[in-house]
Amino acid sequence: MRTLTIKPKAITHNLNQVKKMAPQAKVLAMVKSNAYGHGVAAVLPALQQADGIGVATFIEALEARQLGWKKTIGLVEGAFTADEWQQAIEQDISCVIHHEPQLEWALDNIPPANSATRVVWLKYNTGMNRLGFNAESVMTAAKRLHEAGYQLILATHFANADNRTHPLNSKQIQRFTNVLKALRETISANIKGSLCNSAGIVNFSEHHHEWVRPGIILYGSSPVIDKSAHELDLQPAMNFSAQIIALQTVSANDAIGYGSRWVAQQDTKTALVSVGYGDGYPRVVNGDAYVSVIDSTNNRSYLCTVIGRVAMDMIVIDVSAVPEDVALLDSQVMLWGDAPHIDEVAVHADTISYELLCRVTMRPKRIQA
Amino acid sequence: MRTLTIKPKAITHNLNQVKKMAPQAKVLAMVKSNAYGHGVAAVLPALQQADGIGVATFIEALEARQLGWKKTIGLVEGAFTADEWQQAIEQDISCVIHHEPQLEWALDNIPPANSATRVVWLKYNTGMNRLGFNAESVMTAAKRLHEAGYQLILATHFANADNRTHPLNSKQIQRFTNVLKALRETISANIKGSLCNSAGIVNFSEHHHEWVRPGIILYGSSPVIDKSAHELDLQPAMNFSAQIIALQTVSANDAIGYGSRWVAQQDTKTALVSVGYGDGYPRVVNGDAYVSVIDSTNNRSYLCTVIGRVAMDMIVIDVSAVPEDVALLDSQVMLWGDAPHIDEVAVHADTISYELLCRVTMRPKRIQA
Repeated sequence: MRTLTIKPKAITHNLNQVKKMAPQAKVLAMVKSNAYGHGVAAVLPALQQADGIGVATFIEALEARQLGWKKTIGLVEGAFTADEWQQAIEQDISCVIHHEPQLEWALDNIPPANSATRVVWLKYNTGMNRLGFNAESVMTAAKRLHEAGYQLILATHFANADNRTHPLNSKQIQRFTNVLKALRETISANIKGSLCNSAGIVNFSEHHHEWVRPGIILYGSSPVIDKSAHELDLQPAMNFSAQIIALQTVSANDAIGYGSRWVAQQDTKTALVSVGYGDGYPRVVNGDAYVSVIDSTNNRSYLCTVIGRVAMDMIVIDVSAVPEDVALLDSQVMLWGDAPHIDEVAVHADTISYELLCRVTMRPKRIQA
Repeated sequence: MRTLTIKPKAITHNLNQVKKMAPQAKVLAMVKSNAYGHGVAAVLPALQQADGIGVATFIEALEARQLGWKKTIGLVEGAFTADEWQQAIEQDISCVIHHEPQLEWALDNIPPANSATRVVWLKYNTGMNRLGFNAESVMTAAKRLHEAGYQLILATHFANADNRTHPLNSKQIQRFTNVLKALRETISANIKGSLCNSAGIVNFSEHHHEWVRPGIILYGSSPVIDKSAHELDLQPAMNFSAQIIALQTVSANDAIGYGSRWVAQQDTKTALVSVGYGDGYPRVVNGDAYVSVIDSTNNRSYLCTVIGRVAMDMIVIDVSAVPEDVALLDSQVMLWGDAPHIDEVAVHADTISYELLCRVTMRPKRIQA
């Protein structure tokens, strides 16, 4: 059975790691894209010690409210329409305001004084060049919002925080710091700041400001290029496993799978595992990609390379080095989780763990550990 | 709103194309992996003229029965356990038998004479080297199953049918034809054959035998490397779209997105589209990947390249060549569907349409056209 095991305790552990790294800041825990594929219903109870959650769409915000989340919800791209702004007020959601139309919606339709929607995350574009006001217009926007009674959090987003020495980081930090200082001096000393995603939390501890916005780090992946999840004491929150459904020995010179891409150099013991890209395992992995066959009796596991093309419903693995009483029909195979770590799988798939997590399909059975 | 529009009429059209190409054969329409991501509930009504459906897991088979599918269901990897074999009998499911354990389950537990489970798809490994008996053991297995009262369909699977001139194709065809002939001569003239997936249907019309097993072709993608979906008169069954949520002009030398991978050569009008890998758009696309901005008033569309890194919740596109009254806030953007065709997107993402279809996440709203 293809199985996705979600570990809420790992998420709580990882949240605590964030709190240790950013002890002064409030935490907006990112649960967009169905909590990075983990399932928002499974994840919210593990985030009770967060100060708020962040989502990308109004539907995600609504889902969290329906699941009983009472604290802050930050809509990180803001309302998409004037109508969504009105709905945000009704659901007490705090919105990003990143361009003029959103500013006008907010000024035309001011929520009640006690509404969470009175708190807005004003987005300043410091170099990501996707969302946000420029330095001049952000000052004007802030002034107008403040005068209309909004409480402001100045927010920006790093483009390269994973790579601490990238030259854009210091520029983004400098621009943000300058504007925040100017806003506090000219508009209100109460304006808050939010600069750091997961990578920023790790790499720029002196710039955490009032709110940090951890995402991937909560799910147990490393957000930075020079430290592993293990080095950051993070726990993977998702185990993705399947089972061996056939065993065979292929002869030397036999090819396996679509495109006959892998050719046996010698007689090779292989196992067929009932999982594929139809479950969310990436179709394109390089020849070094591996999974682990679990020996549950002895609490051991054996790394096995994935050979041939990943298909929709199955992969073939080389079990030559696995004891015969371990590589059996029905034996459990871990695609990612405790081992291999998803960050390693991502490298073999030329992507990042974020994408693998989000794109697991609905076919695997979902359980919680 | 991220939207996935499923077009059952396109699927029926594509099924009719299959029937035209293989007029003598019965059709086992593949609906595994949630009907290649289209949603099995939306797809089954469009397949009423198929003779059966194919699924990869027992849960998928059960789901189809619960949705009211009364005709043949083929479980293409067969039962995974003796217990699943028993459940297959209870649900009248026809199973592949590809190795000794499945053979023993079938011989130990023979379904009633009128059960669909009396029909088995006996898998012969002709060169894919994933599943199936070899030439010698398949004869023995066939004899034992026949004597136990089973009706047999000899089945195999091409490794390279998309590439008509690949040398393995003729070998697989020859092996299959030889064994089928021998089975008919020595065991029963009533043994059927099934060789062709979508690509086989297109490329090997003289080898359709009694059952063909179309998959990707039903969903409107080309299964072969030398003919487009258009040339095969197939209709895409999924439109994937989203909306522009911000517009801006980036200055020359400004970089966009994570990793600052894309740098503007000149001042460039860009649009932010609310879709990303968290919705199932592939994260890794090359610099030629494009989407289309829809001008619904004039029933036109404008191709725009995707610039910078695809993120979880958004992409940036170059709208320099789109009229200002078309590239507007809320304008619809098509990721794949009528244009660009998903086969083109797959090329830019270094994969095949099958994977893109299966790995759309649950975030986009699903509707039918």
